[in-house]
Amino acid sequence: MRLVDLIRKKRDGQELSAEEVEFIVRGYTAGELPDYQISSWLMAVLLKGMTRAETAALTQAMLHSGEVLEWSGLPQKKVDKHSTGGVGDKTSLILAPIVAAGGLVVPMISGRGLGHTGGTLDKLESIPGFNVNLSADEMRKVLAACGACMIGQTASIVPADKKLYALRDVTGTVESPALICASIMSKKLAEGIDALVLDVKVGSGAFMKEEATAAHLAKLMVETGEQMGKKVVALLTDMSQPLGRAVGNALEVIECIDALRGGGPEDFFKLTLELSAWMFYLGERTKTVQEGRELATTLIANGLAYRTFSEMVRLQGGDERVLENIGLLPTARNKVDVNSPGSGYVSQMDCEKIGVASLVLGGGRSTKEDVIDPAVGVMVHKKIGDKVAVGEPLCTLYYNNNQQVEEANALIRSSYTINAAPLLKSRSLIHRIIERAGAGTNS
Amino acid sequence: MRLVDLIRKKRDGQELSAEEVEFIVRGYTAGELPDYQISSWLMAVLLKGMTRAETAALTQAMLHSGEVLEWSGLPQKKVDKHSTGGVGDKTSLILAPIVAAGGLVVPMISGRGLGHTGGTLDKLESIPGFNVNLSADEMRKVLAACGACMIGQTASIVPADKKLYALRDVTGTVESPALICASIMSKKLAEGIDALVLDVKVGSGAFMKEEATAAHLAKLMVETGEQMGKKVVALLTDMSQPLGRAVGNALEVIECIDALRGGGPEDFFKLTLELSAWMFYLGERTKTVQEGRELATTLIANGLAYRTFSEMVRLQGGDERVLENIGLLPTARNKVDVNSPGSGYVSQMDCEKIGVASLVLGGGRSTKEDVIDPAVGVMVHKKIGDKVAVGEPLCTLYYNNNQQVEEANALIRSSYTINAAPLLKSRSLIHRIIERAGAGTNS
Repeated sequence: MRLVDLIRKKRDGQELSAEEVEFIVRGYTAGELPDYQISSWLMAVLLKGMTRAETAALTQAMLHSGEVLEWSGLPQKKVDKHSTGGVGDKTSLILAPIVAAGGLVVPMISGRGLGHTGGTLDKLESIPGFNVNLSADEMRKVLAACGACMIGQTASIVPADKKLYALRDVTGTVESPALICASIMSKKLAEGIDALVLDVKVGSGAFMKEEATAAHLAKLMVETGEQMGKKVVALLTDMSQPLGRAVGNALEVIECIDALRGGGPEDFFKLTLELSAWMFYLGERTKTVQEGRELATTLIANGLAYRTFSEMVRLQGGDERVLENIGLLPTARNKVDVNSPGSGYVSQMDCEKIGVASLVLGGGRSTKEDVIDPAVGVMVHKKIGDKVAVGEPLCTLYYNNNQQVEEANALIRSSYTINAAPLLKSRSLIHRIIERAGAGTNS
Repeated sequence: MRLVDLIRKKRDGQELSAEEVEFIVRGYTAGELPDYQISSWLMAVLLKGMTRAETAALTQAMLHSGEVLEWSGLPQKKVDKHSTGGVGDKTSLILAPIVAAGGLVVPMISGRGLGHTGGTLDKLESIPGFNVNLSADEMRKVLAACGACMIGQTASIVPADKKLYALRDVTGTVESPALICASIMSKKLAEGIDALVLDVKVGSGAFMKEEATAAHLAKLMVETGEQMGKKVVALLTDMSQPLGRAVGNALEVIECIDALRGGGPEDFFKLTLELSAWMFYLGERTKTVQEGRELATTLIANGLAYRTFSEMVRLQGGDERVLENIGLLPTARNKVDVNSPGSGYVSQMDCEKIGVASLVLGGGRSTKEDVIDPAVGVMVHKKIGDKVAVGEPLCTLYYNNNQQVEEANALIRSSYTINAAPLLKSRSLIHRIIERAGAGTNS
């Protein structure tokens, strides 16, 4: 088998066999195939697409390029959730303890924030002492004790993705549904899970601004998961405004603690219930999604989810006292309100700008090497549909460095569109649920 | 300017500016841009195409990546011909002396054979002592003395093409009309010529089997040349069977010597007249193409072309006595006929197989490192439309190594299709003449 022939085959729109896809992934991971051929192949894949069989073969080959975790000592079903990334999307932190408190195991491997979106690992690390770099054995112990564990990528899991992603990043080949699907699904399935709930974000704060693009990727991931024998559902959810009110690492942890106590913003709470309900349902903990919602509600109300989170924090080396005393979390030295320049109703938000404002304050990364400031961020007071008077705060900025405030302030102000007339129709949080490829239920 | 942004721009079907194209070519030639980004860009170019302006900018940038020859001491118009490659296509060897004998200058830089097609340099080197590795100064002296000089690529001419072609070869990005056009045109225009005649081969022995593909490339090259201020014409010519009868290096030189004496196969002679006529016309030596035909005919009849060839051979270190004594050329030790398995009329030939048969006998290269045997090859006795009786020779193989004969024999036999009925319509040698992009005259 010669790589140049496979490149030509894909270039000419033909389907590669599973063996051919595996030859490419295996050879590239082993360092036997050069970057310059792989990048040409990646561009051909991006422009010519992949069939569903090819996408599944790619996912499979990437999954088996490294270690696949296995939890033979843990009899419970293993489930996880993956979000395609958004602004203020802190659901993982609360979902994992809810679902674990309900009796399932959540062996979650998360990522860091890049660009305007936050990352679960950065949020967790704002808890003093919290260690996301656990070995598989250490993770097993945490899972056995509390059912949930949240760690970062390791070198041994899906090494093909690390090499391929680094190459895609510099060769204009990131934006391929097949490549995105294989990257996400291989990493998630390497967790050794039985079921996966996908939260595919769509809107001005998501990577996919268009519903059709997001739905296409969602279907592809659901079908790829099914072809690999896993239960997968995708929820297309709204990212036209931040989820909840907190954007920024420690600020988001505080919002999660509130929510675990039954408080917190309504949209965040609602999405958390939906996602955990699907995790319970796919993990066969409940017979219906509705039962899953009820179970999640109970686990918050009776404090079990809260205690599971506290336990997970402690087991991962974090200071669990932050749950009772948020003053132990990093706190910004200064805060300032961003006031509304006009009166009326918020008709839309450029949500990405809210994320960039937090990044500008030091809460995110422009490059992988940037060090983040866990204390800073944005609290969002006015969201779409809200009435606002001139001079009333739209957001509050939490910051440590005066020089960044002006830019963040301008970003926040320009992110809001305020109209005289109220919105006639409220925005739905969950756009669609995709249970099987080709099928989509309006929610 | 970042290369990844230019890759994305091309990937998304947008047009690159001349500055952007030059950034890529200059940076890659200088070793400042990595192979893995360039190969991704090349695949995007292949799949998304280039506009005519981009193709001209690419040609221009490649042309100026190295030395452009100039002939300030030679007042005559400089003209050349380029063929896209075929089987038995030895016209360069006879055209250069004819056109030089007519008073124009032909500073020809040629290539070697690869795959099933022969190369002008290999044919010339079958003449003992012939040196194709001349410096620009040495070339100038030969041109001043006899008007024609035929050399090989040097490291200083279009270095961008050497790097790009080597990368295209292994990344499935050879077959792009824009890239092929820029590669050919930059190398030809680096000869410092005023006018160029393109012989674009089409048919079973050409790289382009389809007329539409060949016509597209031809138009692109004509327009690119015009945009660069050069007179360019393209002749789409037939390669559904070998040109002339000789296929193989020394065998083809012998056929050229015959033709320079007014002999040789009719199709070869006719094409030679047409191409030289266009060279005379574009080089402003004659007022019409018809006058060019007449001039070429005269220069063969009066022996001036023959003497110019002899002089060029001598000036380039070759043994010019081969013209009078072809026994001084390398001669194969053995020959064997390939006899017809049936009776009837030759209805078609898989011409590429004839080229591969010569290659198999040692007359060509499978890889750039192969050493060729100048003596071996194929003499073709039966061509399309010819009547043939069972057992009558289709071709004669000239060989030095017994082990290769059987494969070559099988290739020759399988290349012929023999039907009971004669062909109703003879095949035209010159399909179309493309003088300006968009315009095409049936010939």
